[in-house]
Amino acid sequence: MMPVIDYSGRIPSLRKGLVKRGLDAFLVTNETNISYLCGFPGKDSVLLLTAKEKYFITDSRFIEEAQENVKDFNIKLVRASTYETLCALIKKSALKKIGFEAMNLPYEVACRLGKLAGRQKLQPTKDFIEDLRSVKDPAEGELIRRSIRLTKKVLAITIERAKPGVAENVLSRDIELLFIKNGARAAFEPIVASGANSSKPHARPGNTGIANNSFLMIDIGCSLNSYNSDLTRMVTLGRVSDRFKKIYDIVRKAQRLAIEKIKPGVRISDVDSAARRYIQSRGFGKYFGHALGHGVGMDIHERPNISKCSNGFLRPGMIFTVEPAIYLPKFGGVRIEDMVLVTNSGCEILTA
Amino acid sequence: MMPVIDYSGRIPSLRKGLVKRGLDAFLVTNETNISYLCGFPGKDSVLLLTAKEKYFITDSRFIEEAQENVKDFNIKLVRASTYETLCALIKKSALKKIGFEAMNLPYEVACRLGKLAGRQKLQPTKDFIEDLRSVKDPAEGELIRRSIRLTKKVLAITIERAKPGVAENVLSRDIELLFIKNGARAAFEPIVASGANSSKPHARPGNTGIANNSFLMIDIGCSLNSYNSDLTRMVTLGRVSDRFKKIYDIVRKAQRLAIEKIKPGVRISDVDSAARRYIQSRGFGKYFGHALGHGVGMDIHERPNISKCSNGFLRPGMIFTVEPAIYLPKFGGVRIEDMVLVTNSGCEILTA
Repeated sequence: MMPVIDYSGRIPSLRKGLVKRGLDAFLVTNETNISYLCGFPGKDSVLLLTAKEKYFITDSRFIEEAQENVKDFNIKLVRASTYETLCALIKKSALKKIGFEAMNLPYEVACRLGKLAGRQKLQPTKDFIEDLRSVKDPAEGELIRRSIRLTKKVLAITIERAKPGVAENVLSRDIELLFIKNGARAAFEPIVASGANSSKPHARPGNTGIANNSFLMIDIGCSLNSYNSDLTRMVTLGRVSDRFKKIYDIVRKAQRLAIEKIKPGVRISDVDSAARRYIQSRGFGKYFGHALGHGVGMDIHERPNISKCSNGFLRPGMIFTVEPAIYLPKFGGVRIEDMVLVTNSGCEILTA
Repeated sequence: MMPVIDYSGRIPSLRKGLVKRGLDAFLVTNETNISYLCGFPGKDSVLLLTAKEKYFITDSRFIEEAQENVKDFNIKLVRASTYETLCALIKKSALKKIGFEAMNLPYEVACRLGKLAGRQKLQPTKDFIEDLRSVKDPAEGELIRRSIRLTKKVLAITIERAKPGVAENVLSRDIELLFIKNGARAAFEPIVASGANSSKPHARPGNTGIANNSFLMIDIGCSLNSYNSDLTRMVTLGRVSDRFKKIYDIVRKAQRLAIEKIKPGVRISDVDSAARRYIQSRGFGKYFGHALGHGVGMDIHERPNISKCSNGFLRPGMIFTVEPAIYLPKFGGVRIEDMVLVTNSGCEILTA
């Protein structure tokens, strides 16, 4: 049976945050955030949430579906422009301080809205709903587990097919086909990179056959029922060099050290450091340029960001990747990526 | 043979525009625009273009590929943050007036950049590169024709498969599979909407079988070699009602009237009006809520927007959709969508 998302607590949580920030309304423009709050895709629509009212504002292309599906919202049809409709509501409700998503709204639109509604009324905010989304409830956790199950199934088939001579882009394309046949979609263009091509963290699959006595990086994930998964595995073909084995072991140990750190209350940057310091201590620090991981949920990359600059702390219910790596130009790269769930006492590796 | 895009004139065109606008540099953050200017995907990268220099600024994930592929650009590796790297270049080059893409850069990022670089140095612009992109050169035209050819092929197969009892979402999924098998990707979730479901302009395919003695809206497009196509056809199954035939004929005539208007120098809003007025004159004006069409190229929706608010004029080489429609709630909708190329004397229907 499909897990049922309970939306009822989400707007109350958001309203609590509004009070704390001294806002009397919030404008949601990020499509995923709209969907998170009302269960309906947010394309070209916006939400305006006040202490008492919830408006879903959309145009003629989506109005009929919105009326059928967006329950408990006051649905408003845009006639001239979204922002004129919005300003009329701001006036009518006599709103004084409206938060908006400053990492989502383009500069031009924010300025236009400021001119229409009064600039002093608009308050830029960052990561407000994203932080709510970073902690998953059990139904979300179950949906992510299903997404992972499918990714692992497709990965197993792909590893089976990865024989010398098969082209990277054929394997990558077949991954996309398998996801669609299973009712999902690839969350990103699957990365299938053999040998030296794997030294590029986001390598594009090439059309030459993969070589024997080499290694292959496969980084895949899917979106299934609106929830994502993300997983990287290294596959060896024939004999591999001692150099590969050496960096593989370092990356594997770095990942273990990071995962051992994970439990509620831990500073997020310390998780990144646990892996990064070990890689540095083995002399490969400059070959690990990206962050250790990222949250995964309705977006394939979301909060929390697991990097050396992350100020926050781990909380139970967070789900994110742990993906240390070493990329050696001209030689190739090793990345091992798993997804973990922060539990009450530590963490569970969801992709084990 | 694959048409070869000639990038050599693009930066000079942009620099001419800079001079006209009194800018001494331009910051490109829109991914498609980056790709248009340098032929390399712009994910998480930015371009800074001055009168003399061209910088491609990216981080460790993309640096190796950029160094191999982005020719004639000065490639800069981001160490701490993109905007610190950028500001260092702005200082070094003593830039005074830098245009940025105000519909692309989030408010938060524009403000942060303003603080770092000096707010008075930053000049919001709109549709600068988008307007250059709205006129296609012959190689781009040929790539769009190829994309259309594939969409038509997939459409023909889909029409063949559209029998009573087959579910909308099975047809939609098969369209996605066919595109991938042909080296492309669906440009958007294919719309397959039968009967009353088609009254929603962006209907989501359902899982119930399509009925006999009904009609089906199929709106599909693909992205092939970075260029898109977009096409909507109505398919009838068995006998259809006189009401359907009536609105179909109105939409068809509205489309013909709009297409007859198209030639260089015509005000874009007049093309929209030609179709809209006819639909209004037949009493269905309020059931045609969206714009008449949109440009198609590297993005599936791009300039020119063909709406009643469009101030510009048609120019040879523009490629866009003409898609009048009538949507009757509870009954269903009719949309007919073709792509046209503005020629020197009129237009060519690319999807005929």
